[in-house]
Amino acid sequence: MSGEDAPAQQQNAVDQKQETKPAEEPKAEPPKTESAPAAAAEAAATPAATTAEKVPEEETFTYRALVLTGYGGYDKVKLQVKKGKPALKAGEVLVRVKACGLNFADLMARQGLYDRLPSPPVTPGMECSGVVEAVGEEVTDRKVGDRVMVLNRFGLWQEVAAVPASHTFLIPEGMSFEEAAALPVNYITAYMMLFDFGNLRPNQSVLVHAAAGGVGIAATQLCKTVKDVTVFGTASASKHETISQGGVTHAIDYRTKDYVEEVRKISPKGLDIILDPLGGSDTHKAYNLLKPMGKLITYGAANMLAGQKKNLIAVAKNWYHQFSIHTLSLIQGNKSVCGFHLGYLDGETELISQVMSTVLDLYKQGKIKPRIDSTWHLEQVGDAMRKMQERNNIGKVILTTEPMPEEEKKEEAKKEDKKEDKKKEDKKKEDKKKDDGKKEEKKDDKKKEEPKKEEKKEEEKKEEAKKEEK
Amino acid sequence: MSGEDAPAQQQNAVDQKQETKPAEEPKAEPPKTESAPAAAAEAAATPAATTAEKVPEEETFTYRALVLTGYGGYDKVKLQVKKGKPALKAGEVLVRVKACGLNFADLMARQGLYDRLPSPPVTPGMECSGVVEAVGEEVTDRKVGDRVMVLNRFGLWQEVAAVPASHTFLIPEGMSFEEAAALPVNYITAYMMLFDFGNLRPNQSVLVHAAAGGVGIAATQLCKTVKDVTVFGTASASKHETISQGGVTHAIDYRTKDYVEEVRKISPKGLDIILDPLGGSDTHKAYNLLKPMGKLITYGAANMLAGQKKNLIAVAKNWYHQFSIHTLSLIQGNKSVCGFHLGYLDGETELISQVMSTVLDLYKQGKIKPRIDSTWHLEQVGDAMRKMQERNNIGKVILTTEPMPEEEKKEEAKKEDKKEDKKKEDKKKEDKKKDDGKKEEKKDDKKKEEPKKEEKKEEEKKEEAKKEEK
Repeated sequence: MSGEDAPAQQQNAVDQKQETKPAEEPKAEPPKTESAPAAAAEAAATPAATTAEKVPEEETFTYRALVLTGYGGYDKVKLQVKKGKPALKAGEVLVRVKACGLNFADLMARQGLYDRLPSPPVTPGMECSGVVEAVGEEVTDRKVGDRVMVLNRFGLWQEVAAVPASHTFLIPEGMSFEEAAALPVNYITAYMMLFDFGNLRPNQSVLVHAAAGGVGIAATQLCKTVKDVTVFGTASASKHETISQGGVTHAIDYRTKDYVEEVRKISPKGLDIILDPLGGSDTHKAYNLLKPMGKLITYGAANMLAGQKKNLIAVAKNWYHQFSIHTLSLIQGNKSVCGFHLGYLDGETELISQVMSTVLDLYKQGKIKPRIDSTWHLEQVGDAMRKMQERNNIGKVILTTEPMPEEEKKEEAKKEDKKEDKKKEDKKKEDKKKDDGKKEEKKDDKKKEEPKKEEKKEEEKKEEAKKEEK
Repeated sequence: MSGEDAPAQQQNAVDQKQETKPAEEPKAEPPKTESAPAAAAEAAATPAATTAEKVPEEETFTYRALVLTGYGGYDKVKLQVKKGKPALKAGEVLVRVKACGLNFADLMARQGLYDRLPSPPVTPGMECSGVVEAVGEEVTDRKVGDRVMVLNRFGLWQEVAAVPASHTFLIPEGMSFEEAAALPVNYITAYMMLFDFGNLRPNQSVLVHAAAGGVGIAATQLCKTVKDVTVFGTASASKHETISQGGVTHAIDYRTKDYVEEVRKISPKGLDIILDPLGGSDTHKAYNLLKPMGKLITYGAANMLAGQKKNLIAVAKNWYHQFSIHTLSLIQGNKSVCGFHLGYLDGETELISQVMSTVLDLYKQGKIKPRIDSTWHLEQVGDAMRKMQERNNIGKVILTTEPMPEEEKKEEAKKEDKKEDKKKEDKKKEDKKKDDGKKEEKKDDKKKEEPKKEEKKEEEKKEEAKKEEK
């Protein structure tokens, strides 16, 4: 996929133009002629650039980009200024980015836990919204000035991005740039899980974990487009009112209650569909909670994320408890286990476009609406990630490329000192968590024995049933 | 489920009436008054019974039943005559059976490989058609004389069967008893796999193994009810013309060609849905043949069946090669693995009824029609099973309860001698297969190394890709 090497190219945009372009593309001129109107649009969009109008823009063009400089904590994502306009390949468009969406995969990526992001230094970001500023050769369905949302494997957390036109989708009238940046990943993910793998139909029941998160809210809204669907949603108690208003039928506080028990109380036979972003032992619980003909759709390993830096114990635990299933069990249970991650579907342009078109129709009909939790300047990306990782958000966390007002910058500077304190605090928390992790590990060893006991009980029951038949 | 202990009860019908019924049900009289019209209907249906009209029918009532007397070869299913009319519990109806369907699970059961059949002696049979001869208490939607098809966990290969009314479905006008006996298991199975787990939609591609078998033909017909679905069907070459006429787009001779290669030639990206009745290593192949968002639905372990008696090597091989999947692989592949077996869905009466109603609508619209391969008398059950197990059928193998004409009986008697010869031949074949199995086992040890090598290659490729990105 052409998107794969885009960011690397952007970072070396100037070099590339000088060295490789003439050799690769004999028609080196057209991009230049095309860039004239683009430059005008750009001038309107970014007043700062106008001062350099007379100098060849390839040299004066600068843009801010967030760059993951190495795996680790929130401070590993740094705001840098890049020089040189990204070169457009055939089929690509240059997008002046307005807003970007944060996703769980970005948090995993920062810790080195997401293999779809190339090694640092690299610009993260799987979705954004913006305006088309230039179109490459062979692009027929996008024009300068189009308002678009973008889905890409990575590389969208920056002010301009060169992306395949096929990865862009026109923003419907009335949708803000923030909403447009909040929509693609969460709604396509929720839609494909519920309606492709899940085959959701009227009267069914669905468990949505992290129901106040981006995918959770999208899934809840999509469930409500089908008649009489019961939505069980987990979230901490403070978010229950909001998610209930959003469509969750039964809100469950997973921090104080056993969600399996809570679901069984209301739906003793179990559930039709379970969306599982947690992984590890929660996948086992989900499998056992399925009705016959039920579908478990696992789409993440959020349980791996514990603390802002890679927590080896959490990762190992997740691996250790990773769900594995034999076909014979599936047959005897009449169950389905599916895995989903949009990041691995980047070759499926046509499929994604179809789904996007359906999702946008639902938006136009007023049936779905992205909920924005908060919007942050690029300078604040660390705080934005923290909010999401600590599960303090209700809805989508958004980055805006709007320049930060000077006053706010001063405020931020004041906060810096506090941040340093915060960092120390974080460090303490991390250490504490590690200790807790170790303690929990010991507990887990004890817990391991329990499922075995249960299995034994099941076997005993079967034996008895057989005896009775005899 | 009430069906579970039905056959045992039927076999001891006389005893039960004398001993337990008065104690359990104070109103012991109603069944007797109900049995008067039933007896009349019965008299019409079975002329042989009319001679005993004056004697209490509980004592004179006899019926023929196939009984699995122990696990093993075809001769383990014996035709016996039972005495005493089966007692009806509340909610049950007595069905005068006209025709029965043979299923792969019956063949597995005979070898002791199907845990939904209680231990011998027991009457097998999961589906039949017939006429309601008596209705028990609390049955409101069935009446004497109704033509019905029946789905039950077992116990239907006999002339009369007491079954829950909820397990019966009215036969549409114009459908023969043979068709009605051929429909339930195959069409419900194919329908639920394709449209519940599979979520089949226009333009998709489906692989149907054993496309000339009962489920195979049902699945092909159901695929053709959706626009532009491409059906890949495996079958031996002699059956290709028939299955192609039946709707298979690409017939593949699995005996002479590698079906994976054949599919890839036509559909390089792979398939949307694969129905897998084989198990073992074929499930692995199927998984790798899936497109992103593809669904693998495994519904049997036909590979376990090798020869007429349990072949321990085949069983062990199937277990050894049994497919097991980690959720992380599912996520990275965006794939779904489902298991289906109607035999484990016997508690889901409402769900089954809904599907049956949809399937019967399709029948009434002329979109599906069960294909009967051959019909056999109860005396010929061994030959019927052999035909199916040796994959010589195209469509459904049916048993009829029609008495065998005397002439045919004489013919059969003549064949008996030949059968003895055949048995000896079978024995030789079995021995040969065992030898072959041992040889193949050795081959398999060598093959085991190969997948490991491939894994290594994949890892190397990934490493290279990472290097390039850097």
